[in-house]
Amino acid sequence: MKNWEIIETNFDPNALRYKETVFTLGNGYLGTRSTFEEGYMGEESLTLIHGIFDDVSIVHTELVNVPNWIHCEIVINGERFRLDRGVLLDYCRKLDLHNGVLTRVVRWRSPAGYTFDIAFERFASLADEHILGVRCKITSVDFTGAVEVRAGLPGYVDNTGFVHWQWLDQGSIDQQTAYLTVCTKKTALTLSMACHVEVEGAGPITYHPQDCTWSPTVMAQGNIAPGQALTATKLVTVFTARDTGVPQTAALDKLQAAVKAGYDAARVANDAAWADVWNTCNITIEGDDEADLAVRYSLFQLLIAAPRHDSRVSIPAKTLSGLGYRGHAFWDTEIFMLPFFIYTQPDVAHNMLLYRYHTLPGARRKAAENGYEGAMFAWESAATGDETTPRWVPGRGGELIRIWCGDIELHITADIAYAVHTYWRATGDDAFMRDYGAELILDTARFWGVRVEWNAARGVYEINDVIGPDENHDHVNNNAYTNHLVRWNLQMALHILSWLRATYPEKAAALCAQLELTPERLAHWRDVIANICIAHDPETHLIEQFDGFFELETVDFNDYEPRVTSMQGLLGVEETQKYQILKQPDVLMMHYLLPDAYDSVTVKANWDYYTPRTDLTYGSSLGPAIQAALAARQGDIGAAYQHFLLAARTDLQNARGNTGEGIHGATAGGIWQAVVFGFGGARLTEEGIICEPRLPSSWTRVAFQLVYQGERITFDLVHR
Amino acid sequence: MKNWEIIETNFDPNALRYKETVFTLGNGYLGTRSTFEEGYMGEESLTLIHGIFDDVSIVHTELVNVPNWIHCEIVINGERFRLDRGVLLDYCRKLDLHNGVLTRVVRWRSPAGYTFDIAFERFASLADEHILGVRCKITSVDFTGAVEVRAGLPGYVDNTGFVHWQWLDQGSIDQQTAYLTVCTKKTALTLSMACHVEVEGAGPITYHPQDCTWSPTVMAQGNIAPGQALTATKLVTVFTARDTGVPQTAALDKLQAAVKAGYDAARVANDAAWADVWNTCNITIEGDDEADLAVRYSLFQLLIAAPRHDSRVSIPAKTLSGLGYRGHAFWDTEIFMLPFFIYTQPDVAHNMLLYRYHTLPGARRKAAENGYEGAMFAWESAATGDETTPRWVPGRGGELIRIWCGDIELHITADIAYAVHTYWRATGDDAFMRDYGAELILDTARFWGVRVEWNAARGVYEINDVIGPDENHDHVNNNAYTNHLVRWNLQMALHILSWLRATYPEKAAALCAQLELTPERLAHWRDVIANICIAHDPETHLIEQFDGFFELETVDFNDYEPRVTSMQGLLGVEETQKYQILKQPDVLMMHYLLPDAYDSVTVKANWDYYTPRTDLTYGSSLGPAIQAALAARQGDIGAAYQHFLLAARTDLQNARGNTGEGIHGATAGGIWQAVVFGFGGARLTEEGIICEPRLPSSWTRVAFQLVYQGERITFDLVHR
Repeated sequence: MKNWEIIETNFDPNALRYKETVFTLGNGYLGTRSTFEEGYMGEESLTLIHGIFDDVSIVHTELVNVPNWIHCEIVINGERFRLDRGVLLDYCRKLDLHNGVLTRVVRWRSPAGYTFDIAFERFASLADEHILGVRCKITSVDFTGAVEVRAGLPGYVDNTGFVHWQWLDQGSIDQQTAYLTVCTKKTALTLSMACHVEVEGAGPITYHPQDCTWSPTVMAQGNIAPGQALTATKLVTVFTARDTGVPQTAALDKLQAAVKAGYDAARVANDAAWADVWNTCNITIEGDDEADLAVRYSLFQLLIAAPRHDSRVSIPAKTLSGLGYRGHAFWDTEIFMLPFFIYTQPDVAHNMLLYRYHTLPGARRKAAENGYEGAMFAWESAATGDETTPRWVPGRGGELIRIWCGDIELHITADIAYAVHTYWRATGDDAFMRDYGAELILDTARFWGVRVEWNAARGVYEINDVIGPDENHDHVNNNAYTNHLVRWNLQMALHILSWLRATYPEKAAALCAQLELTPERLAHWRDVIANICIAHDPETHLIEQFDGFFELETVDFNDYEPRVTSMQGLLGVEETQKYQILKQPDVLMMHYLLPDAYDSVTVKANWDYYTPRTDLTYGSSLGPAIQAALAARQGDIGAAYQHFLLAARTDLQNARGNTGEGIHGATAGGIWQAVVFGFGGARLTEEGIICEPRLPSSWTRVAFQLVYQGERITFDLVHR
Repeated sequence: MKNWEIIETNFDPNALRYKETVFTLGNGYLGTRSTFEEGYMGEESLTLIHGIFDDVSIVHTELVNVPNWIHCEIVINGERFRLDRGVLLDYCRKLDLHNGVLTRVVRWRSPAGYTFDIAFERFASLADEHILGVRCKITSVDFTGAVEVRAGLPGYVDNTGFVHWQWLDQGSIDQQTAYLTVCTKKTALTLSMACHVEVEGAGPITYHPQDCTWSPTVMAQGNIAPGQALTATKLVTVFTARDTGVPQTAALDKLQAAVKAGYDAARVANDAAWADVWNTCNITIEGDDEADLAVRYSLFQLLIAAPRHDSRVSIPAKTLSGLGYRGHAFWDTEIFMLPFFIYTQPDVAHNMLLYRYHTLPGARRKAAENGYEGAMFAWESAATGDETTPRWVPGRGGELIRIWCGDIELHITADIAYAVHTYWRATGDDAFMRDYGAELILDTARFWGVRVEWNAARGVYEINDVIGPDENHDHVNNNAYTNHLVRWNLQMALHILSWLRATYPEKAAALCAQLELTPERLAHWRDVIANICIAHDPETHLIEQFDGFFELETVDFNDYEPRVTSMQGLLGVEETQKYQILKQPDVLMMHYLLPDAYDSVTVKANWDYYTPRTDLTYGSSLGPAIQAALAARQGDIGAAYQHFLLAARTDLQNARGNTGEGIHGATAGGIWQAVVFGFGGARLTEEGIICEPRLPSSWTRVAFQLVYQGERITFDLVHR
C-alpha cells in the first residue's frame, strides 16, 4: 500500500542522529532509537521504558537508557562488520508503518575485500510488549569461511554520558540463552532482560556463550560459501520491577514461551495487533502523498509512545525516542497529543489522564510549597508529579540561565483540567469524571481561587508574574491565554460540582468536605469568573497578550531571513523580551481551545495581528499545526496548508534541526488535529460530532474515524 | 620490619569507600583505588592516569577513570565468587609499603557449600610505570571440579556516573592476549591497554577468549581437587597519546616484552625501585608505632602520586586516589606536598614546578580575562592552567551555591612563587631559576603590581575583595596572609631580578623586555612593598586576619561539641561569615611560611588568639599538621603532638569522614613537614640545614634524610 513506508537509500553519517530518531521503534512500553545492531561511532543508542526514571542533577529525574536489546555483531575472518570500515556498496533502511518493523539491507565489502549482503530486521511487539525480536541474515557473495555472530545484552549504556545502572546479576541458561539483571542507582528499580539466539546456515553451527560481566552474549559460529547464508534470530524479553515482583523470572519464563512459539509467531501476532490498531485510527489522504505519509507517520509516533497498559505514566514531550526534556511530560501531552487518543482510542486516553490523577499528590505538594491551596501541576512532570523543570541550565558561555517555567508557567494546571473535560465530553465516561476527573477539576480551581490577586484600583482579579504559551516573554501580568483558561477552569469546576450534586450527591458531599468547598469559596470563584482581567478591545477586537504587550517594539522578521534558528536565538533571551516576537500562538491558542468565546471577527482580527508576530519556522514546534487548524477553521485553506506543511516536515525532514533530540510529539498530535479539526472540520456539538470539511485543493479524499460516546463513526470526505 | 604494613582483617561493607582509598596503589603514572578484582556492589572502582583529562560540566575538566586493569573474576561450577554471596570465613587485606604490593587472602564458602582459599596480589610497577600485574591463586579446600578465571579490560567505566570514553578498537592477539583502545570524548586522548593471562594448575588449562565489545576478556578453565590450586597471572600494559604516537602498538610491544620476562621479574624490578626510593626518603620514628606507620604511610601516598617522568602534570589535591576535586591541583601541592620532594627527591620537585611554568599561559589568560597584567594562577588547575574552579555547586536543597575561590582566592599566585624560591634555595638549581623560575616570580609580581589598590585616605596599598586561606570568610579586604605573601612576592621579584642581572644579564634583559619591567614598574613595586596594608598592632602583637575580623562575633566551639561536621556545616555558609571561626590557619599560616617576619612574642600572641578560633577537627584538613609544626617550633611539644595526631589519623582512621573521596594529599605533605620542620626542627639557614629537635616525649629516635644543594644529609635524632 502506498505511503506506508519510511525509506532511506543512502547512509549519511552526518544525518546519523536525526535518522536514529526518525526510524524509532516502539510498542507503548518502550521506544528504541534506530541505531545500528553492530554500533556506530558517535551514535546515540537509546531504549527508554515508560516509568523507569532515575535521579540526576539539574533536571531532577530522567528516563533511563536500558540495556541495548538490538545488539548483534558480525565478525568475518576476524573482521568486525562496521559501516565505518570497508566499502558500503548498497544500503536501504525501511520502516514499515503497517507493523512497526524496521529493516536494513546492505551490501558491504570488508577491508579484506570480501563482499556480503546483510539484511537486518527488528520489531518491538505490539501484541506482547515484553517481546522484542532481531533477525540478521548474512549472505556471502564471494567469501568462503567462518562467520561469527555475537548477540547479547550490553548493559553498559548511559544517558548522554551518565550511567544509571548498577549490575545485579547475569548468566547463561544454556549456550543460546543469556540474561542480565540491573538496578537503577537511586530509584532502585530492577530490570531484567533475557535473550535467546538461534543461528541457521548450510553447515553446522557452534555456540560459545560469552559471559562478560555487564554484557552476557551468545556467540555462534558457522561456515558459509558464496551464495550461502547464515541467519541469526534473536528473541529478547524484558521486565522491570514496575511490571512484576521478580523481573528475572518473568523475563526468562516469557523468553522460554516466546522461543517455543518462535520468532515468526511473534511477528504474526505483532502484525495482527498493528492491523487492529490501524483499524481504529488510520487516516487516508488521497491526492497528496506527502501529507498522507506524514500524517500516518505522526500517528505511528503517537501509537508507539502511548502507554496502552499503564495508567501511571504519560507520553513525554519527545516521546520515548530521545533524551530531549529527559522524558518529562508537559502540556504537550494533554493539549496536543491527547485528542487523537480521546477520539480514536479512549482507553489509552483514560490511562493518560489517570496519570495526572495519580500525580495529584505531587501537584498539591507544589501548590503547598509555593504557599497556595489546591493542585498546581508541574510544568515538567515525571514519576511523582513533583516539579522537575530545571531551575538553571548552562548557557553558551558557561553562564547559567534561570528557567522560570517550573515556577510561573501556570497554565498547565488549567490545560489538564481542560483535557479532562474534553475526554468526558467526547466519551461520556461519567464514572471517570465522578471518580477522578471532578476531584482534579475542583482542586485545580481551588488553586486558581487563591492564586488570583484582587486589584482594587482596576476592579479586576489579576494573575501576575506568569509565563504564557509564548515563552519568549516571562514574568508577564495577565497573560490572555492563562486568564481565559483560568476563567474556564473555575466555570467548569462550578459546572462539574452542580452535575455531581445532581448525579452523585454522596461523591459531591465527600469532595466538598475533602476540598473545603465552602459556599464562601464557591462565591469567590463566581466573583473571579465575573471580574478576571480580560483585555479585549471592542473597537479593534484585539486581545492584548499580556499587560503592555502592545507597547513592545515590533520587528520585521524578514529583516532576519534567511535564518536557521529562532528569533530568540538570534537576539538573545533578554533582548527578545522587548519585542513583539511570539515563540508560539498565545491569544490564538486561546481562540483555538475556546472557539465559542469570541465571534469570528474577533478571531480574524487577532489572527491577522498575531500571526506575523509569531516565529513559526524556528519558534516552538507546537505552533504550526495549531495555526493550520485555526486557519482552516476560518476558511483560509491556503494559509492552513502552508502551516500544515511546516508541521508535517518537522521530523521527517528535520526541519528545525533538532529531531536528533527526539520526535516532536506535540507536533504529531497537532498534525492529527489539523487534519481532523482543521481540514476535516470535525467538531463536537450538543448533538454529537459534525464535520464541515475545508480540504486543501490537492486533497481529493480524506477518510478518518472518530469515537463519540462509545460509538465509532467513519468520516469519508471527498473533495467537492 | 615493623610499621611497614597497612592491614585489614575484617571486611566491612559500610567502610568500603574509605578503605578503597586507604589501600590505593600507584606508581607516579597512575593511581588505582583498592576495589576488588571481582567487583562489589556500590564500589567506586577507579584508576586515574596523570594528565588524562576530559571535559565535564560545572567542574570544567576532570581526570578520567580508565579501563579497569585489576579485573579478575572467578567462576566455580557456574557460581561467581563474590563477597556479597556465600560466606566469608576469613579475610585479610594488606598493603606492603615496602614495595606497594596489595594482597588479599580470603577463605570463602560458596552458596553451593564449597570452600576455597583465594589469594590476590597486585602492583603497579614503580620500575616501569606502564606495567601492572595481578595474580590470583584459588585453592580448593573441599571442591572437585572446574574453575574458570575471567580476566580482561572492562572499558565501560565511568566517573561517578559520567562516561568519558568512546570505543575505538579491541581484539585478541592470541587466546591469552587481549587489547582495548578507547578515546576520551572531548579531549580526544587515545588510551590502549593490553593484557596477557596465564593460568597454571594441576591439570590442563583451556583458554577461551571472550571478545565482548568494550570488555575483551581472557577466559581460562581448569580443574582442581581438594588441596589443589589454580594460579592466574595477569600482566597489563597501558599507554596513552600523552606517552607515545600509537598507544596500541606501544602497549602490545611492552606486553610482549613483559610476558617474556615474566611476572616475577616485573615484581623484582618493582621491589628494587621501591627500595631505591625509600632509601632517599624514609623516616623512622622509634617509640611511637602509630606515628612511625602514619608518617611512612603519608610518604607512600606522596610517592605514588608524584609524577616522576612528566613535567606537565601535578599532584591533585586528592592525589590519584579519588574523584574529590576532580583531579585538580591547588596550593596544596606547592605549599604542603612539595617540600617533601624538594628535600628528598629534587628531580620530582623540579617536574612539579615545571608544571606551573608550563601553565603560565593559562595563568596569563586568567589575568587578562580579569583585566590584569602578569600571571594570575588558577585556584584549581588542570591540563592547561586555565581556571577550573566550579563557579556554582549544588547545595543541599538543590539551590546553587556560588563558589568564589576561582575568582578571588588570589594567594595561590604568591604561594607558587614562594615554592619556586624554596626549591631554588634548597637545591641551588640556578639553571632552573634562570630558565623558568625567574619568569614565574617576575610575572606573578607583575600581577600583584596591578592588582593592589592605592587607598589615599589610609595612605596604604590595599588588596580588597579576596579569600584568604580561611575560606569561611569570603570577599574580605586586606587578608593578612595574602598581603604578607604579596609583599614577599614583590620583594623576591626584585631580588631575583638583581641576581639575574648580576649572573645572567642576557636573560635579565630578555625578561625585562618580555615582561615590560620598566624602571617605573620596579619603582612601583618598591612603593607597594613599603606601603602595603599590614594590620599589626604593636601593643597586643595581634595581626588582624582581615579588615574587621576583630569586630566579628566570637563563638565557643565547646557549645557545639560533640560534633562530626564543620562549624560551617552546622551554622551555614552565610551565618559562619559573621563569626570568628577559621576553617584553617591564616595569620598562623603566614607565620609558618615567613618565620623571620615577626619575633616569637608576636607569633605566640597570634597563636594564642587564633588557635581556639580555628575549626581544627572538621575545618580544613590543611590545618592540623601546620599547627603541629608551628607549635613544635614554639616549643609547645604537647600541643604539637595533639595536632600531629589529628593529622596522622585523617586518612588511616577516616577521621573527617571523607577519605572515601580520596587521600588528603596536603595532610600527607603536612605530616612530613610537622616531623621534619616541627619535631625535627630542621630549617634552612645561610649555612645550610640545621636541626633543633623538639621530640614528643614518647619518641626515642627520629631519623630522616634531607638533600641540600645536591648533598644528602642524614639526621638521626635520639631523644635526650
